[in-house]
Amino acid sequence: MNPVRDIRIGPHFPTSERKRKSRSVSNGVKKVVTIGGGTGTFTVLSGLKRYPLELSAIVTMSDDGGSTGRLRDEFGVLPPGDLRQSLVALSEADTVMRKLFNHRYEKGELAGHSFGNIFISTLEQVTGSLDKALDVVGKILNIRGRVIPVTLSKVKLVAELNNGKVLNGETEIVNYQLVSKFGIKKIFLKPTARANPKALKALREADIIVVGPGNFYTSLIPNFLVGGIGRALRASKAKKVYVANLMNKNGHADDFCVSDYIRLLENAIGGKDVFDVVIYNTKKPARALIRKYADEGEPVVCGPKCRKGAYKLVGADLLANGLSKTAKADLLRRTLIRHDPAKLGRIISEL
Amino acid sequence: MNPVRDIRIGPHFPTSERKRKSRSVSNGVKKVVTIGGGTGTFTVLSGLKRYPLELSAIVTMSDDGGSTGRLRDEFGVLPPGDLRQSLVALSEADTVMRKLFNHRYEKGELAGHSFGNIFISTLEQVTGSLDKALDVVGKILNIRGRVIPVTLSKVKLVAELNNGKVLNGETEIVNYQLVSKFGIKKIFLKPTARANPKALKALREADIIVVGPGNFYTSLIPNFLVGGIGRALRASKAKKVYVANLMNKNGHADDFCVSDYIRLLENAIGGKDVFDVVIYNTKKPARALIRKYADEGEPVVCGPKCRKGAYKLVGADLLANGLSKTAKADLLRRTLIRHDPAKLGRIISEL
Repeated sequence: MNPVRDIRIGPHFPTSERKRKSRSVSNGVKKVVTIGGGTGTFTVLSGLKRYPLELSAIVTMSDDGGSTGRLRDEFGVLPPGDLRQSLVALSEADTVMRKLFNHRYEKGELAGHSFGNIFISTLEQVTGSLDKALDVVGKILNIRGRVIPVTLSKVKLVAELNNGKVLNGETEIVNYQLVSKFGIKKIFLKPTARANPKALKALREADIIVVGPGNFYTSLIPNFLVGGIGRALRASKAKKVYVANLMNKNGHADDFCVSDYIRLLENAIGGKDVFDVVIYNTKKPARALIRKYADEGEPVVCGPKCRKGAYKLVGADLLANGLSKTAKADLLRRTLIRHDPAKLGRIISEL
Repeated sequence: MNPVRDIRIGPHFPTSERKRKSRSVSNGVKKVVTIGGGTGTFTVLSGLKRYPLELSAIVTMSDDGGSTGRLRDEFGVLPPGDLRQSLVALSEADTVMRKLFNHRYEKGELAGHSFGNIFISTLEQVTGSLDKALDVVGKILNIRGRVIPVTLSKVKLVAELNNGKVLNGETEIVNYQLVSKFGIKKIFLKPTARANPKALKALREADIIVVGPGNFYTSLIPNFLVGGIGRALRASKAKKVYVANLMNKNGHADDFCVSDYIRLLENAIGGKDVFDVVIYNTKKPARALIRKYADEGEPVVCGPKCRKGAYKLVGADLLANGLSKTAKADLLRRTLIRHDPAKLGRIISEL
């Protein structure tokens, strides 16, 4: 057995909550809550924005690399990067504002920084609160929906491997290529973090909760390491959806199939049979693209090796073919194999 | 004779334009145009904003120091600093946005930068045009009026002293304490600059043009070194007002009285009897404050030594006593002896 699949992911909660399957839809508009961060959440939100839904994005808060890491180090602020991507996804401001927020400096002392990160972090300092800062940014970007930091605690992600190695911070974890080999013994936030009450409320009132897609250990798992989030997810009457990644990450998720992700997620969430629906891609990327990606990873499959679960499996062609002009402008990591926001949005909105 | 008073300030234009004294006031709202930059213009605009006037601020574009200088060097943008101050002065957004724009970083790699400068310069890069950038910033800050760069040419201020010394750039000029001693032989922009057509239009349509207060060689004079601005000022039917500084700057304007400033300004503008009204302060600052300022300069007076001109002299108590809470938040250079925006605004609005 791949040792990485046997991680203990804390905190743990009893798995006995009974799900009430009845869902209330207030004033006819479904409330959809996404959990994630980074480009995956950007894609889901971009797709869902086209539908008459009430959107809330719960966003991971343990990034410590790049522009975000520098701002955290220097100003002691909360990490702005994942928030920025979700804000831009939900923005209905004109292209200039969206381009501005995603603008990344290429030279000089600002090189590597994203303007949106600087904006959010400066507003946090000026207002004295990330919450107030997000209100202001939300108005300027004219966002449809809400972006909710999963926690307002200042935390770092720590992973302890089975060989005793301790990886401090997301950047170390992402870059350490032997995670699968040694396996994660324990992954946790340091110090422990309390859930943002707004995140708990959003989960409680949700009609649909969408987890993923996204980098597994940096965009998804850290959300469920925040005390109370797993419990709130399990207790919610919402339909719970998991959107599987397109590609496994070498060294972190070698040979994973869809059910492997679900098992690890359920460990982190602290429950069994958490998800009602699992959406995965059935379209094989072009051979040339797969070859280009070989260093990074292989496509995620849902083949015969995949264990069955209590969830409904929805397989569909989810691949983006070309790039729309807007997507091009907004896209940060120019991955060639990626979800099509429109395809993903349509499937989720029809649940 | 103080050699600094004998400078040639180019470009020069014939002084023969006949002023037409009739002023048209379109739709009952007077059009007031300020010419300057920095804290002086911030003060005038803050005062005038309280009255039902149509305000345009023509702003100097040759700053090359501090945060602005770093942004110019790294990104090849136009100088944002003076624009920022005028934008904040005209802003009717809530305090948070005004504080945000004036926020100055005190530590880390951003230390010394002002957020507003970064904002304007990044937008200039994203939109490809300072003009478009100012439109966007103006909307975000909800400004009442317009802020107009005097030129869109990228220029540097150069001063040649009578001893042959050449001072390259505003920062060198401001910091060189022997300007008065040797006297300025020639002061010019390098390369030569063309006026922003919007500035020319504003001057043409103005009912009142207010020059000053402000740092003489960095906020006022550079505006008139832009080709066409002096001519447009002279040709305008507007009532032309000069607001004298409160304090002379040691090494630059030693023992200047009000008429000395006017003469040098008229040299730069290229005309005689340019101003219709000259406003100056009559209230002597407290002895203790004057002592504190001794290193920087002495109060500007309009005493018996002052030559008479064709202008109407308006002397009044223009000193700010305390600081309003808003002024405190907005103030960048915490000068203790400074104009009261309300007093200045009232006098100008009653002209």
